[in-house]
Amino acid sequence: MSGEHARQRMEAVLAESDVDAVIAISPENVFYLSRALILTQRYIPDRLAIVVWPRGGEPTFIVCAIEATLARQDTSIADLRTYVEFAESPVAVLAGVLAERGLARGRLGFEPTVWNVGNFRALTEALPGATLVPAEQLFDRARMVKGAWEIAHLSHAAHATDAAVYAAFRAGRPGWSEKAIGDRIQQGMLADGADFSPFLVLAAGENARRVHHFPNTDPMPEGSILHFDGGGFWQGYYSDMARTAAIGRASAEQRDIYARLWAVQQEIIAGVRAGVRACDLYAHGKWCYEQQGLPFGMTLIGHSLGVVLHEHPVINAATEEPLQPGMLLAIEPAVGTTGGVMYHIEDLVLVTDGEPQIVSRAGEWAELLEIGV
Amino acid sequence: MSGEHARQRMEAVLAESDVDAVIAISPENVFYLSRALILTQRYIPDRLAIVVWPRGGEPTFIVCAIEATLARQDTSIADLRTYVEFAESPVAVLAGVLAERGLARGRLGFEPTVWNVGNFRALTEALPGATLVPAEQLFDRARMVKGAWEIAHLSHAAHATDAAVYAAFRAGRPGWSEKAIGDRIQQGMLADGADFSPFLVLAAGENARRVHHFPNTDPMPEGSILHFDGGGFWQGYYSDMARTAAIGRASAEQRDIYARLWAVQQEIIAGVRAGVRACDLYAHGKWCYEQQGLPFGMTLIGHSLGVVLHEHPVINAATEEPLQPGMLLAIEPAVGTTGGVMYHIEDLVLVTDGEPQIVSRAGEWAELLEIGV
Repeated sequence: MSGEHARQRMEAVLAESDVDAVIAISPENVFYLSRALILTQRYIPDRLAIVVWPRGGEPTFIVCAIEATLARQDTSIADLRTYVEFAESPVAVLAGVLAERGLARGRLGFEPTVWNVGNFRALTEALPGATLVPAEQLFDRARMVKGAWEIAHLSHAAHATDAAVYAAFRAGRPGWSEKAIGDRIQQGMLADGADFSPFLVLAAGENARRVHHFPNTDPMPEGSILHFDGGGFWQGYYSDMARTAAIGRASAEQRDIYARLWAVQQEIIAGVRAGVRACDLYAHGKWCYEQQGLPFGMTLIGHSLGVVLHEHPVINAATEEPLQPGMLLAIEPAVGTTGGVMYHIEDLVLVTDGEPQIVSRAGEWAELLEIGV
Repeated sequence: MSGEHARQRMEAVLAESDVDAVIAISPENVFYLSRALILTQRYIPDRLAIVVWPRGGEPTFIVCAIEATLARQDTSIADLRTYVEFAESPVAVLAGVLAERGLARGRLGFEPTVWNVGNFRALTEALPGATLVPAEQLFDRARMVKGAWEIAHLSHAAHATDAAVYAAFRAGRPGWSEKAIGDRIQQGMLADGADFSPFLVLAAGENARRVHHFPNTDPMPEGSILHFDGGGFWQGYYSDMARTAAIGRASAEQRDIYARLWAVQQEIIAGVRAGVRACDLYAHGKWCYEQQGLPFGMTLIGHSLGVVLHEHPVINAATEEPLQPGMLLAIEPAVGTTGGVMYHIEDLVLVTDGEPQIVSRAGEWAELLEIGV
């Protein structure tokens, strides 16, 4: 997992920007830029880790002294600074680095949704001459095109997730609970390299009304539809997939809805071409629903995926970003019935110079899978 | 999982406070007060969920319309409001609720480490007459004494985590990797009710220098020490435990260090008594290290545990909170060697009117466990 691709992306985005430097503090952007995965950034938010990346210059990485060994081993950023928590303020160390780099009066890009009120006040007080500008879109644009290692890694994660879901659905028997299926899925992902599974929605029948339902231990009702939406955490990157199955024998109506949704997804994926704007792909998706006679009520039909679960570009009506080779898009049409049942198919698709490539299919999903049959 | 205990705690803390209401937006406090576990609050931070709790009044719960079914089923808060994301601002809905409740010019407790810069500006602009005061300590004090359901639930989670660790260590064979052990631990926790495992550090030998090391697939070196620190997520609550084992036969020196650390932990736990201040327990811990001839370098020797991993009271030099019956404390002395090896024992202890109760011991840990022997 070299940092070379991330470095090139960040430098290219900075070169075209109007900021003198960016300051990353979110766990995702700090990991992306540094390649050091600092777990406590997610669980102990006061223990800031920070990357400062000047336009045309070398980055600086600031971490709590506790994390220094891990950071030094994993990052390729040469300038590593540490602070002792409680005794030193990481924001003060940051202000010192900025001053030292001649950026104290600079135009500094920051992440407005991540800075908390107290830290941001401390930063502005320490840097009265700086202009702080919201810059999350610079990080988003850096991350949106994946490098070769990222494509291989995210493809493996997606494929392994699908294999785990398929195996668990195939293993399922009458009377199994959502949780029994979900635990198998997690085990399958772990065995194939996942670190853990941070989100896993499995909802049988009307439980799908609870949009982000945790799997429970009740026996799943025969004749209903099982909705899966979940994934794993793989060395800083996510998998995210949705699958639909019948619990027991599927009815003709269930098979019909699934077949239409499958056709919708295939048709949307066929439209994933370099140069197509995200909003146009979204409009194409709406048209696909209409062609298949399915109601369209989605505010997005897909999203990019990487160190953040929903990355830019999001495939919605507003995003004008053109697709580029090296983007990985989760394409996820869904349709809910009035009975609260959810049909949902989500696959990961690589944008190329030519045909799109689906990288997430390990199982057979063209027809509605019947669990326990 | 009734919300009655949380309601009583919050009402009691508010009654003694100088605020007119508190506003909770952190996933942890919103879950604690509402009892609705909204997963996307953790992964899609813009999709705010909010609890407003006036002193002497009834709470209001604000959620994104997508989460309305789940929230309505799971919460006992009668006044549930929804907003449509992108179309309506949750902060505007919050300001409207506060105005409606006559609190627009009130003294309002908020969570300064959770509000981001943009949302906080919107809030202060919408409520120019309000006084916003940092109030995280009110939530901390509400949560610090657990109710009967919480004690049973957290005890089960701790016991199941220990059982999973013990079984995985016992199953381990020469040549196993950290990840092979870690996957078994996760599987064991899932099988006993965990939703997933958000953090799991397993470091063989010098990998322990990487304080928050992810398990890797290298064979663990015979003769070294394995450090485990991790836990699971159990319907909104955490388990957190540390264990130490030898990989293969332990040396006399390894057994000796472990035996001293075990004695230190037993002695600290014996000091867990209602009325003792957290800082005095910390000082007692330092004395225990000295008695056993172990170097003392810990900034904390334990912490409370619940919907947050490190809850108040933290057992450090600064915390003057007296222990109370119903607190659950993770007591976790550790000692690192100059070779980078980590010995660490962490157990969950219930503060009672009399003897402390260790609720986390499923396995036999009094002597250093030898993996694969």
